[in-house]
Amino acid sequence: MFTDEYFMKMALREAESAFEKDEVPIGCVVVSNDRVIARSHNLTETLNDVTAHAEMQAITSAANFLGGKYLVNCTLYVTLEPCVMCSGALSWAQISKVVIGARDEQRGFINKNLSLHPKTEIVTGIMENECSSIVKEFFKSKR
Amino acid sequence: MFTDEYFMKMALREAESAFEKDEVPIGCVVVSNDRVIARSHNLTETLNDVTAHAEMQAITSAANFLGGKYLVNCTLYVTLEPCVMCSGALSWAQISKVVIGARDEQRGFINKNLSLHPKTEIVTGIMENECSSIVKEFFKSKR
Repeated sequence: MFTDEYFMKMALREAESAFEKDEVPIGCVVVSNDRVIARSHNLTETLNDVTAHAEMQAITSAANFLGGKYLVNCTLYVTLEPCVMCSGALSWAQISKVVIGARDEQRGFINKNLSLHPKTEIVTGIMENECSSIVKEFFKSKR
Repeated sequence: MFTDEYFMKMALREAESAFEKDEVPIGCVVVSNDRVIARSHNLTETLNDVTAHAEMQAITSAANFLGGKYLVNCTLYVTLEPCVMCSGALSWAQISKVVIGARDEQRGFINKNLSLHPKTEIVTGIMENECSSIVKEFFKSKR
């Protein structure tokens, strides 16, 4: 039951919430022991804050929940590959696993030759089409 | 009067505030038209939050002050070279200028071959010794 698809669907629901607010539709959840301990979506426009990416909010929120700043035994499910800023934050958090929906060849951290913490396992391509489609649809609606 | 040293001294005072709180002593200020519009220091331990670097707080705070998320005509003075996370945030913010005290060869963005926004001017080495000494002193006290 608690598959990567299961939690990525929750992240995608967060992305849909962002879309409804006219935010770039990216969402994520943080899971610890099969329990969602943080969920968030991009809020850069609403908050007028470039740092309000889904992942940044989720890291802060999950650390609050855990009462410690390191996200050990935690998995982040995110619909789009994290950017440089968010990859840096995930490295500092020493998160155990990051599961990525769609790749972001241009803005994502992978093509910048950045790595996360040595402990962090990275999985890509979970519900890739759905995660990618919602972003494409958003930018098409903006043209 | 409003030299780079003048504002870096203010950033250094922020770093000293961090030191007094047993935080890694890094501080910064954001200046717009010779006026300080944000000041902050590292609070990762106090807030239990890896994202609470001085620069991240200053970006959010300056954007709040300006009422817009882009830090145009703004200069960030920071005592230590920004990390990957903070360099990513500064890129998104399209800040005009970043003035760095001491380099951080290991954790800083420059040696990771990352660049800031094409519009952003970067200056290094302002009060380098003072900015570097306070960090060294902090870690010496920890041993």
